Amino acid sequence: MSQNPQTIDQSCKIDAESAFNFRQRLPALAEKIIASCDDEACYSHIDYEPLHSETAVIDIIKRFREILFPGYFGEQKLDPANLKYYMGQSVSLLFDTLSDEVTHSIRHDCLRYDQSCSNCSESGHQIVLEVFEAVPQLRRVLATDVRAFFEGDPASKSYDEIIFAYPGIFAIMVYRIAHLLYLKEVPLLPRIMTEHAHSVTGIDIHPGAEIGEYFVIDHGTGVVIGETAVIGKNVRIYQGVTLGALSLPQNAGEQLRGKKRHPTIDDDVIIYSSATILGGNTVIGKRSVIGGNVWLTESVPPDTRVIMETPKLIYKKENL
Amino acid sequence: MSQNPQTIDQSCKIDAESAFNFRQRLPALAEKIIASCDDEACYSHIDYEPLHSETAVIDIIKRFREILFPGYFGEQKLDPANLKYYMGQSVSLLFDTLSDEVTHSIRHDCLRYDQSCSNCSESGHQIVLEVFEAVPQLRRVLATDVRAFFEGDPASKSYDEIIFAYPGIFAIMVYRIAHLLYLKEVPLLPRIMTEHAHSVTGIDIHPGAEIGEYFVIDHGTGVVIGETAVIGKNVRIYQGVTLGALSLPQNAGEQLRGKKRHPTIDDDVIIYSSATILGGNTVIGKRSVIGGNVWLTESVPPDTRVIMETPKLIYKKENL
Amino acid sequence: MSQNPQTIDQSCKIDAESAFNFRQRLPALAEKIIASCDDEACYSHIDYEPLHSETAVIDIIKRFREILFPGYFGEQKLDPANLKYYMGQSVSLLFDTLSDEVTHSIRHDCLRYDQSCSNCSESGHQIVLEVFEAVPQLRRVLATDVRAFFEGDPASKSYDEIIFAYPGIFAIMVYRIAHLLYLKEVPLLPRIMTEHAHSVTGIDIHPGAEIGEYFVIDHGTGVVIGETAVIGKNVRIYQGVTLGALSLPQNAGEQLRGKKRHPTIDDDVIIYSSATILGGNTVIGKRSVIGGNVWLTESVPPDTRVIMETPKLIYKKENL
Repeated sequence: MSQNPQTIDQSCKIDAESAFNFRQRLPALAEKIIASCDDEACYSHIDYEPLHSETAVIDIIKRFREILFPGYFGEQKLDPANLKYYMGQSVSLLFDTLSDEVTHSIRHDCLRYDQSCSNCSESGHQIVLEVFEAVPQLRRVLATDVRAFFEGDPASKSYDEIIFAYPGIFAIMVYRIAHLLYLKEVPLLPRIMTEHAHSVTGIDIHPGAEIGEYFVIDHGTGVVIGETAVIGKNVRIYQGVTLGALSLPQNAGEQLRGKKRHPTIDDDVIIYSSATILGGNTVIGKRSVIGGNVWLTESVPPDTRVIMETPKLIYKKENL
Repeated sequence: MSQNPQTIDQSCKIDAESAFNFRQRLPALAEKIIASCDDEACYSHIDYEPLHSETAVIDIIKRFREILFPGYFGEQKLDPANLKYYMGQSVSLLFDTLSDEVTHSIRHDCLRYDQSCSNCSESGHQIVLEVFEAVPQLRRVLATDVRAFFEGDPASKSYDEIIFAYPGIFAIMVYRIAHLLYLKEVPLLPRIMTEHAHSVTGIDIHPGAEIGEYFVIDHGTGVVIGETAVIGKNVRIYQGVTLGALSLPQNAGEQLRGKKRHPTIDDDVIIYSSATILGGNTVIGKRSVIGGNVWLTESVPPDTRVIMETPKLIYKKENL
Repeated sequence: MSQNPQTIDQSCKIDAESAFNFRQRLPALAEKIIASCDDEACYSHIDYEPLHSETAVIDIIKRFREILFPGYFGEQKLDPANLKYYMGQSVSLLFDTLSDEVTHSIRHDCLRYDQSCSNCSESGHQIVLEVFEAVPQLRRVLATDVRAFFEGDPASKSYDEIIFAYPGIFAIMVYRIAHLLYLKEVPLLPRIMTEHAHSVTGIDIHPGAEIGEYFVIDHGTGVVIGETAVIGKNVRIYQGVTLGALSLPQNAGEQLRGKKRHPTIDDDVIIYSSATILGGNTVIGKRSVIGGNVWLTESVPPDTRVIMETPKLIYKKENL
């Protein structure tokens, strides 16, 4: 593009005196900002244990992934000769990192809310050992998910592609790990993990949800699965599906914390894109199929297909 | 899986002569690609000031976050003894980075469009000082957002969880910073900042929108808030909500640039998931509630609940 | 906030004996996890060529972007003097990285599925040279996209802003590169590239789709464009639009792999937010306009505007 761009001349530079004058005003501003840390209306986190670093959380998820799908994600080629050393080392490193972070979560809340001693470090180590006990079973469940993805998606070319590249599998894997930690009442960390997966995939699964094996989320962007949702085996859902709560009264936060607010989806159900299913008493019966864009706040019996009445569309000739 | 994998043999390697032959063809291809930089139909950015680095923009957001929510995100534990030094240093570093980038944005457009001298560096420093003046107030407003999140969401466990992990708070924080820069007519940078938040959270807020305090976006994926939207105090919106423009005629870009095209949402309104509200003259009155999936192109009076007529659903027994 | 935070005392630490006892239990757990790699039900990737590193894929996309939009993304200022060297070097580096990764994809599948020799390395180099031949044309097509974005979006301030910050342009660029590789039957890599763009933008375009020039995706979060979709020239789509397959029978994966399952969109069509168009025989005729939220499983003739019948809404006075 043959324009005549100008170049930086003297007028683009700030002179030394001006620069000095601007910087002179900085300490007073910094003081005001520091003073605002005492503002009772604002949130600061001073004199508490630091929260997690995002790097540590991402690191935990990566290490877990290497153990749950061995050979898929490491830089190194795994073969029968090095497998044992590689996995042993990975397990050991993950143990250290994860028990640090779990300990950290427990200790943070203990000190933050003046709880009596929670034996944070003992608990942290103990919980991670229990989670590790569950890894072989977790691998089996994730393998059912992978198979269900392949069977349900004509665009998938191989298991490798699904494991390596599909956002749905990543989100489900992170959820399944976080759910184990949630069941053991680890604070903060499970939600931080699923929110990382939400950021990467657009799929928002609360770690409290209960989800059976052979679970598929296709495309996935916009999916929301609430804290008290219960999902059976062999359920398939598409992008934009919400399993949510009914509309909330004022101060719902306080009143409804801990109550079942999200639906139950029985085995072998399919829910197409952008369907919305709301309410803690709503049950979708076995083998039912919920069509795209359907909006449901009531239960559906088993073996039922629910679709929108063909929406009336208006066709107009365009003025040309 | 007991397959018999092959290993790389000689046939997997390219011989030296072939490799040489392939590389031989590269310079001619590179020449054609370079020549295409003169193609008037294409876009190049040659002889102009470089645009922002993504790293610098992410760095600014991170530093801002440390100042707006002190102690939440740094690696270091803040306590009353080190607070002053830590915050002073953070403010000073952010001042340098941000005034560089603001200067850079102004200078880029000045040179790009042959404007008369915009005193880019003076303006850049001056604008950042003014933004810093607003930080204590910005902290107060963000604290109202955090409280509104907690009150409205039964799944939230603590303020810490909301501040540290909720995508809605991150998107709102970035928007509120970018909006300050937008009001001071900084080019490029505000939109680059909100698009970063869009990428991280799936929430797309144009920096030009005006949004009051106590603002909540829950889940958030798919939310779009247009440039000229105006949102009052204590408004809560859910995933997939669009506050957009009516359908646009040809060349709308030119005709409508700068006009109010997006709706006004008054105080205390709740908008449930995937509702769409369009048009610059559309006003949702105070305390009204817009149900999920509702599609609105007209105003709604105050104190009104708008829901879809229960959509007709068709229930069929599945053939088994 | 003037609370009295506790500090870490002795009880927060784990004693040496406990730590030793916990670590003692690790080898047995590691053994079980390693043993689970022999579990036929699970997925491991042992004794195969490693898959791609995410870093390498991101690197390829970044380098491509520097070549397709010269001067926009590098750290260095490009001017007529250094342009040739910079571009030559970029092209050469991309050649090496990309031919490695393409070779890698071909070899991986060759060894994984015991195919006869695929001359992976020769093919890898040959394919990348052919892709490079196409770069000047690719630049021209991407420039049509940029112009279409600017003309259609009143919120856009400049071409620079669109190229540098708009997620739609990023997703389209990655798709157009991946589509070239898909046409040359490179396995794995094209999908990995578009899934990276999906993660960054919320826009999920399968590399198999065919898309004409002057293509616009505005906002984009939640857009899904299926593998066998065909899109003409000058088409504009908004956030949440799905171009998908009709609902699938059991084992659809196997039966439908390779068949046309997604719609055809003719030239000059606009599809507003959250419209869903499904089915391999569905054709949207030239110059037609599909309104927001419309759900279509049948063809639409040219020059037709399709909107939802004004949805019946229920207005209730709120009890105050």
